[in-house]
Amino acid sequence: MIKEIEAVTGPIAQPDEKAALQAVQRLNSLTKPPGSLGQLEALAVRLAGISGTEQPVYAKRTVVVMAGDHGVCCEGVSAFPQEVTMQMADNFLSGGAAVNVLARQAGAEVKFVDIGMIGDIDHPELINRKVKRGTDNMAAGPAMSREEALSAVLAGVRVAQEAVAGGTEILVTGEMGIGNTTASAAILCALEGLSPEMAVGRGTGIDNERLLHKIAVVQRALDVNWPDPADPLDVLSKVGGLEIAALTGLILGAAASRTPVVLDGFISGAAALVAKAVAPESTAFMIASHVSGEQGHRLLLKRLGLEPLLDLGLRLGEGTGGVLCLHLIDSISRVMSEMATFESAGVSGADKL
Amino acid sequence: MIKEIEAVTGPIAQPDEKAALQAVQRLNSLTKPPGSLGQLEALAVRLAGISGTEQPVYAKRTVVVMAGDHGVCCEGVSAFPQEVTMQMADNFLSGGAAVNVLARQAGAEVKFVDIGMIGDIDHPELINRKVKRGTDNMAAGPAMSREEALSAVLAGVRVAQEAVAGGTEILVTGEMGIGNTTASAAILCALEGLSPEMAVGRGTGIDNERLLHKIAVVQRALDVNWPDPADPLDVLSKVGGLEIAALTGLILGAAASRTPVVLDGFISGAAALVAKAVAPESTAFMIASHVSGEQGHRLLLKRLGLEPLLDLGLRLGEGTGGVLCLHLIDSISRVMSEMATFESAGVSGADKL
Repeated sequence: MIKEIEAVTGPIAQPDEKAALQAVQRLNSLTKPPGSLGQLEALAVRLAGISGTEQPVYAKRTVVVMAGDHGVCCEGVSAFPQEVTMQMADNFLSGGAAVNVLARQAGAEVKFVDIGMIGDIDHPELINRKVKRGTDNMAAGPAMSREEALSAVLAGVRVAQEAVAGGTEILVTGEMGIGNTTASAAILCALEGLSPEMAVGRGTGIDNERLLHKIAVVQRALDVNWPDPADPLDVLSKVGGLEIAALTGLILGAAASRTPVVLDGFISGAAALVAKAVAPESTAFMIASHVSGEQGHRLLLKRLGLEPLLDLGLRLGEGTGGVLCLHLIDSISRVMSEMATFESAGVSGADKL
Repeated sequence: MIKEIEAVTGPIAQPDEKAALQAVQRLNSLTKPPGSLGQLEALAVRLAGISGTEQPVYAKRTVVVMAGDHGVCCEGVSAFPQEVTMQMADNFLSGGAAVNVLARQAGAEVKFVDIGMIGDIDHPELINRKVKRGTDNMAAGPAMSREEALSAVLAGVRVAQEAVAGGTEILVTGEMGIGNTTASAAILCALEGLSPEMAVGRGTGIDNERLLHKIAVVQRALDVNWPDPADPLDVLSKVGGLEIAALTGLILGAAASRTPVVLDGFISGAAALVAKAVAPESTAFMIASHVSGEQGHRLLLKRLGLEPLLDLGLRLGEGTGGVLCLHLIDSISRVMSEMATFESAGVSGADKL
């Protein structure tokens, strides 16, 4: 392992089992049938373990949108032209994209990071960490060099560290990059040994013909590059994306600082899969916000060992599913701190069956 | 049909197709791939149709918790003793129950209605509409008289009318009544011709032995009473519950005033099934908040023709799933009013494929 990454992953600890156990006990003391809040109870227990307290509250929340371009777009894998990445960047920075709207609803701050867009945008709120002006076409050779992939990962780690230093208590992954479901599918194939048929989906909405073409492009990227599943940085550099690498870093940085990191959709999931390959213990700090309409996402979450909270057929990315699910986290937090117990309310427990 | 009910259901209209179409057009103009907000887009279209505007906002939201007791509890169908209905009533009124906590999170008001609890509670916020001190044991005869069932339905209608007159823009169904999953399962069997094996679930959490017993009790209730599926009031009176009848009225009252009504779980669903039997056009005004862990709920929602928004294995009732899902309604409302369009943001549309 590269020593810069080891420096990040070294401090990743196990969840706090004592706090998790206290959360279980508290849940069972509340005036409701045991287990009746379903998946939200499991969420409460995981959050307690992550944050080391039975009643965590996440006041300051930040969604980080990593933006990068993809050389593979020249193969015609997307329904949208590549310049949409830049156009959407303007939209994010002026607050008009879906993730901006949903972040306002969730009380979350949006940080927009240029980690690898082709063009430059001059805006006071843009965080410029550009590593490279878009990846190269992975169907013809590696998407980027190993050094570039490492730089993007470490840039993501720093964004997480800075956010946490600035008071962020929960992070949400977001991204923008036309072509990035293609790269994500290739990562899923490379790391998990899946066929492109299983991993490739319709992204922003392609028809059957283009879907078959996208599958063939992913296959070509794998054949040309031979990414090594035992070497996550090799996979990232050969068939990944700059925003995906940066999200891997963001996730690892969050885990290292015991900050829960809410995963958005398929692209965030691919970044999480790389994070897991680098540091398996990092999955304990991940929350899967939703399973998307993108083929391969459900399987990807299974490989991560995560249960998604929402299943709404979302396939927008940006961090939209991630910020949507903050409400469920807030809701169970409030349950943990405000609900009456059987004892305090004088309510009889379940009959001894 | 009874003329008092006809007076309520008569004004139930069709959704506003023009507003629904405008919502579709707006969704397609926003800076996102068409359809990429999945089920939330379908929700936006339905809400537009219900509220007659492309951008509905539901500022004042009310969850109505109808509480009643069930004579069938003497058969030992629940994990909790019957007195828990009364004990929980105190808990609701002092704000300590799960629905109170989640309603605070959602900015919703909780109205607690005694429609048929055995005992009396003196509390300034309790709305007393008691029709009967608990139902009779439906396994031995009708749960209540036809007149009592009608009174409970009409009481529910009035609660909806009063809430709407008081400014409520969206209603959520809630309930409390130990034994009410048994009555709900019997309603599902009676109206839809299902066997108790398919309709009966574990309620607040019973073991296998008691589950088999509960199935037998529901079968007995059906055998003893012969509820007539063509006569919804007959079904309600013979195998229903006072809170279920009142929720049927609440739903019909909401539909008549073009107010969206968010259904909580299995018991609310049984009430909605009766509302559908009374007035099929009422389903257009219903939003299914979630599919619960209670067996039979998924099937029930299918019969209603509704797609649930959440699937979290909740089985708490009270209105908890209903208030949880208000956030999704708020989120898509905000998307409709705040997101940039392709035109306003200068973003390229999808390639002509």
